[in-house]
Amino acid sequence: MPSAAAKSLAKLMRDLDFCMLTTRRTDGTLHARPMSNNREVEFDGDVWFFTASDSNKVREIEADPRVSLSFADPGNWTWISLTGRASVIHDEDRKRELWLAELERWFDGGPESPQIALIRISAGHAEYWNGEEGGEVDFSRE
Amino acid sequence: MPSAAAKSLAKLMRDLDFCMLTTRRTDGTLHARPMSNNREVEFDGDVWFFTASDSNKVREIEADPRVSLSFADPGNWTWISLTGRASVIHDEDRKRELWLAELERWFDGGPESPQIALIRISAGHAEYWNGEEGGEVDFSRE
Repeated sequence: MPSAAAKSLAKLMRDLDFCMLTTRRTDGTLHARPMSNNREVEFDGDVWFFTASDSNKVREIEADPRVSLSFADPGNWTWISLTGRASVIHDEDRKRELWLAELERWFDGGPESPQIALIRISAGHAEYWNGEEGGEVDFSRE
Repeated sequence: MPSAAAKSLAKLMRDLDFCMLTTRRTDGTLHARPMSNNREVEFDGDVWFFTASDSNKVREIEADPRVSLSFADPGNWTWISLTGRASVIHDEDRKRELWLAELERWFDGGPESPQIALIRISAGHAEYWNGEEGGEVDFSRE
């Protein structure tokens, strides 16, 4: 059974499409860029993104998988900070399952292309703020 | 003379009050939380925030000053990622200069209180996305 905080978090994430994915460059500095999860995935502790296989983020994740995701909807006083481990997934079935036609705007080739990979972020810990409310989720206990 | 990209960045930042500040915990995992800069500061490469002197973020910055800031306004397709070095500033004159009455909501005591400090983030590099536009700013060259 998910905790009350985990349920609140999943509910907030349902409405948030974009986030910033922060990785580490090899020189130790942090590096963030906007990512979209296309609101297609019911959040269960894993967040999935498509990426170009040869992107900086793939290189940075392979060098250090400890990443964070920041979701922000300031108009609704909602913020989520999620810390986790990222992995780069090349599985064609999984890519086909998560592929959406609108992704063709961002990526040349379909889910079969080796130039396109998935990033899976397995959440370790999350914190959320929603108006005067807020909470923390420790995924090792969920 | 600021570059065209630096001018675009400063213009975008003027409308963005909140951001997520990402620091590193001592175990190496990343840690982000929302921060407000109260829209009071014309961005010139430094971003200022008030903080409680004994907060986790102060401890994390003192252990590793390499931080990032993520600004997001998905409704306007605007994102900013800023990487820089943070320092904790206790200067009372500077605190008085940047203090706003509305901060009393968040902090007990005024700018004279040693329990309240400033965090200054000196930008090293920034990247921004605004609709189909975007750019990068290297502050060592500005």
